[in-house]
Amino acid sequence: MTKKKQIVAIGRAAVDLNANEMNRPMEETSTFTKYVGGSPANIMIGTAKLGLDVGMITNVSDDQHGKFITNYFEKIGVDTSQIHVDENGHKSGLTFTEIKSPKESSILMYREEVADLYLAPEHVNELYIKNSEYLLISGTALAKSPSREAVIKALLLAKKHDVKVIFELDYRPYSWVSEEETSIYYELVADQADVVIGTRDEFDMVERYKPLTDKEISELLFKSTPHLVVIKHGVQGSNAFDKEGNVFEGKAFKANVVKTFGAGDSYAAAFIYALVKGKSVEEALKYGAASAAIVVSSHSSSEAMPTVDKIENLIKEQS
Amino acid sequence: MTKKKQIVAIGRAAVDLNANEMNRPMEETSTFTKYVGGSPANIMIGTAKLGLDVGMITNVSDDQHGKFITNYFEKIGVDTSQIHVDENGHKSGLTFTEIKSPKESSILMYREEVADLYLAPEHVNELYIKNSEYLLISGTALAKSPSREAVIKALLLAKKHDVKVIFELDYRPYSWVSEEETSIYYELVADQADVVIGTRDEFDMVERYKPLTDKEISELLFKSTPHLVVIKHGVQGSNAFDKEGNVFEGKAFKANVVKTFGAGDSYAAAFIYALVKGKSVEEALKYGAASAAIVVSSHSSSEAMPTVDKIENLIKEQS
Amino acid sequence: MTKKKQIVAIGRAAVDLNANEMNRPMEETSTFTKYVGGSPANIMIGTAKLGLDVGMITNVSDDQHGKFITNYFEKIGVDTSQIHVDENGHKSGLTFTEIKSPKESSILMYREEVADLYLAPEHVNELYIKNSEYLLISGTALAKSPSREAVIKALLLAKKHDVKVIFELDYRPYSWVSEEETSIYYELVADQADVVIGTRDEFDMVERYKPLTDKEISELLFKSTPHLVVIKHGVQGSNAFDKEGNVFEGKAFKANVVKTFGAGDSYAAAFIYALVKGKSVEEALKYGAASAAIVVSSHSSSEAMPTVDKIENLIKEQS
Amino acid sequence: MTKKKQIVAIGRAAVDLNANEMNRPMEETSTFTKYVGGSPANIMIGTAKLGLDVGMITNVSDDQHGKFITNYFEKIGVDTSQIHVDENGHKSGLTFTEIKSPKESSILMYREEVADLYLAPEHVNELYIKNSEYLLISGTALAKSPSREAVIKALLLAKKHDVKVIFELDYRPYSWVSEEETSIYYELVADQADVVIGTRDEFDMVERYKPLTDKEISELLFKSTPHLVVIKHGVQGSNAFDKEGNVFEGKAFKANVVKTFGAGDSYAAAFIYALVKGKSVEEALKYGAASAAIVVSSHSSSEAMPTVDKIENLIKEQS
Repeated sequence: MTKKKQIVAIGRAAVDLNANEMNRPMEETSTFTKYVGGSPANIMIGTAKLGLDVGMITNVSDDQHGKFITNYFEKIGVDTSQIHVDENGHKSGLTFTEIKSPKESSILMYREEVADLYLAPEHVNELYIKNSEYLLISGTALAKSPSREAVIKALLLAKKHDVKVIFELDYRPYSWVSEEETSIYYELVADQADVVIGTRDEFDMVERYKPLTDKEISELLFKSTPHLVVIKHGVQGSNAFDKEGNVFEGKAFKANVVKTFGAGDSYAAAFIYALVKGKSVEEALKYGAASAAIVVSSHSSSEAMPTVDKIENLIKEQS
Repeated sequence: MTKKKQIVAIGRAAVDLNANEMNRPMEETSTFTKYVGGSPANIMIGTAKLGLDVGMITNVSDDQHGKFITNYFEKIGVDTSQIHVDENGHKSGLTFTEIKSPKESSILMYREEVADLYLAPEHVNELYIKNSEYLLISGTALAKSPSREAVIKALLLAKKHDVKVIFELDYRPYSWVSEEETSIYYELVADQADVVIGTRDEFDMVERYKPLTDKEISELLFKSTPHLVVIKHGVQGSNAFDKEGNVFEGKAFKANVVKTFGAGDSYAAAFIYALVKGKSVEEALKYGAASAAIVVSSHSSSEAMPTVDKIENLIKEQS
Repeated sequence: MTKKKQIVAIGRAAVDLNANEMNRPMEETSTFTKYVGGSPANIMIGTAKLGLDVGMITNVSDDQHGKFITNYFEKIGVDTSQIHVDENGHKSGLTFTEIKSPKESSILMYREEVADLYLAPEHVNELYIKNSEYLLISGTALAKSPSREAVIKALLLAKKHDVKVIFELDYRPYSWVSEEETSIYYELVADQADVVIGTRDEFDMVERYKPLTDKEISELLFKSTPHLVVIKHGVQGSNAFDKEGNVFEGKAFKANVVKTFGAGDSYAAAFIYALVKGKSVEEALKYGAASAAIVVSSHSSSEAMPTVDKIENLIKEQS
Repeated sequence: MTKKKQIVAIGRAAVDLNANEMNRPMEETSTFTKYVGGSPANIMIGTAKLGLDVGMITNVSDDQHGKFITNYFEKIGVDTSQIHVDENGHKSGLTFTEIKSPKESSILMYREEVADLYLAPEHVNELYIKNSEYLLISGTALAKSPSREAVIKALLLAKKHDVKVIFELDYRPYSWVSEEETSIYYELVADQADVVIGTRDEFDMVERYKPLTDKEISELLFKSTPHLVVIKHGVQGSNAFDKEGNVFEGKAFKANVVKTFGAGDSYAAAFIYALVKGKSVEEALKYGAASAAIVVSSHSSSEAMPTVDKIENLIKEQS
């Protein structure tokens, strides 16, 4: 029997085009450097660099950008056997980024009829899900059909085969028809996941969570399937809750900030790495924070993902 | 405080146009009679005629057909406070029926961009769900957005307020993008309903149920929320299963068949009536079968819905 | 060589459902009678009944309604060799009519994704156009792609083979995206037609015509291809203009009005019949007016189309 | 009264992202340089650099890319008063280019729901058209509604105000629904233009032209509005025909080819410049060929557009 993958993610893999000229608006930049991007892609790249055995379920364009994404995954060690190549001309998404200052950066997205949202239920392989320890669901993949149904199919299969589900809320307003739809699908999937991770702003997308404290949200979720809930508050750190009633406070690490994007994905990658490795929640929070601090200090989101050594050194330094 | 509604349905209310000339193909008929139609509408009309306090959550066209539907509900005693009138020109669905012979009838549907599938989450009122004992979900309402999300919202609200959910599979191929989508949403909602009712063909829409016996399907569902499962086999009768392990066999009643359509809705109306009234599952199966036998002997689906007396008389006659 | 068709029309053929109960709003009617409908279909039925050799280029549903339309054309003598049967499930359009009073009638249309607007360029046969004396273009067929392109193809083919083009404006707000689009395509096609017929309201859809008198509109058109322009003013009669500078005034005939719909189509049928038969414009105006008077006195639009005798008798009576 | 613009173009203005690393496939390139692109935009940039008073009618995205395009036009001297900024989130098109070798280059386009195809009739200003000597129509702008209708409106206005129309076929398969649609609209617009320019492959998109020789195509067009027809054959040179029966053969100039894209636009810019300046057709063909030779020898399409001096020097050199 094949060894199980430690984690597989379902969601988008896209292309980032980061302006090389910094500290000016994008209409005045003239050259860009290309990276693989997209939250779940970044997380898988991050966990692969940390040494986990991981894979990606997605749909990419049948062109040079699609090939670039797949080649990069292969180079880094993310399994690409479940990367479907679109047959109907859908393009891989693009994100142009500009860094106006360490605190002000903005993005310009091309996500119209984008390949990753055309991942379809028939592209989701039961055996692949079954042979994984964890399934990571990225919230953006719920934004549109047929990707939405592909995710729900993966979720039903994970439950059928007792695969643990991590729901990373990853809210991107661009792709959704309405906030009411987001609220409905986020609540539906959160109820059936084992671990739920997001920023407080992302949790607030669910109407029912909005009036609640972090603790109350976690208690509501513990009545359904979840047993671990992580709510992030940016530089204020993050709160984690487990079903046994423990509350963990995580602090943000000091960083020499170049730009803020990429922080969430690097946090998630290292947090998940720690979880999968059986470390305590307290440890996992430190891994997440350290990893985030490293990525915000560099130019890209995916290429800058740190190694275990780098993370553990930073933890030592700042403890 | 207002008294709770005994049951409210979410799904389509449409117009049936039944050919008056029988035993010939529709291209040769020349006049039609107009009735209210659509499975959940028929079921609510049926339960109202049986004396229950019921309501309908739907979206109708802003025209004479929409008015006709609403007027008819009011006449029969179905609460119309949650009937939304479409603001974007969507038309109420039409079903032309022809009766070629008692065994052969066919339908011709107009359901393109139809009003009922434009019922949206914002039309679903939390208080109305909360003030109901049962919520009836019609499977066809899951076929397309935004009706799909309106149904999921109603389901989440029902669970929040401990309202019991009946899922009537009511599969209509016309409205769905693919059978894979049907499978996914049917499994998702069935898992979270209290009572699941459908024909065996409808249960077979769920890939995971297909290879299973009726009993195995019910056992799988009992691992999640459901506690009662009814699987119908047409003239062969129906099987009901409860979580306690009881199995009930229901027989079809003899009838002077004019046409077969309308049978399922009249069955559901009387079965649900019996459930709500606290009768045993065995009794409920008889009510369903008797009601179906009465409706297949007449020209329409909605107007022919029987009274309690008629049903109980037929039960006596055929016992 | 085959004899040329005298006239072929391109545009919609649909189903009318006329309420049998008159003088009440449609939400209170309960039975309907079925007829073939749609302006160009009615005109072809009218000209066939008047004895012309005519044909219809359209797309109908692959169901009982489509068959009903084709069968009726065959019965009346309209050539159906160019009637395409839709392969993608598009339905033939429906028009429910109610007659509230002789002066007040209204219609309720089902034209969403309707078969006639899916007539495509590949359904237009060059030889068929070439073998016709006249091509009648119905304005509604310009409302949406691919029907719009099918019409433009037919127009380009008619010009290639010196087939005369009659443009019947036939404006129906329902099918158009915007009035600006109507203005653009009406001006484009009117410029290239030989004969242009419409009500003054329909001519006013063209922005450039709006500020002009009837005479000025005709003079503008005479700078391009047209040589005959007919502008109708309902009960006030109609004005016809020819390129030679002649002006003809047509009077409306007295009628025992049951309902007003169908008047335009019966007018066009008889007017075109007279043109094709080589009668003078003055005569043609009388034929049109007499035919309209006959149809508004009856229940349907298509079945009521008069014979030559009936028209000529009425002309005699009212001269 | 304001002086008339010498030429205004209607069609797309987009962003080119040219790979900096040459002679390798794009999946292996990592940096890109940004330029303004799109055939009519390039032509206007070219004519502006040659000293004409020109303007652009288009719709750009409301973001940094849209601003970049508009800023660049302003810098070069293309009037931007008719550049509409999209209000519905449509993005400006992107073209990634790779240069594998001087003979093999390919492009990757992002044109899904792209801003330029959302130029609408209401964005076309009658006075602006009226105050121009020439209107340049780019064929790609006919590919989809509402841009298609914006172009037809501009065409009707040009004819109303005796503005000369140049139709640059500029066929891009990506944007069209079908070749049959292209054929129909190209024939329709070519018939009503004064000057028609395209490659032989582009002329072949019109079914009716396909079996004809260059000369026969021009003769067919001369029966309608056109008086000058230019058919290009790449390195074999081009043929021009005028209504008086003259035939002109243009030769391609020798060039140190870096890549082939951009050749057509630079040809058109210089050819049109010569026409507007009242030079002979023979001269204009030389200007076109010289300009093309200059642009294919450089990295970009727009920035590389030559000055009059450069063109005239090359003409001298190679005569």
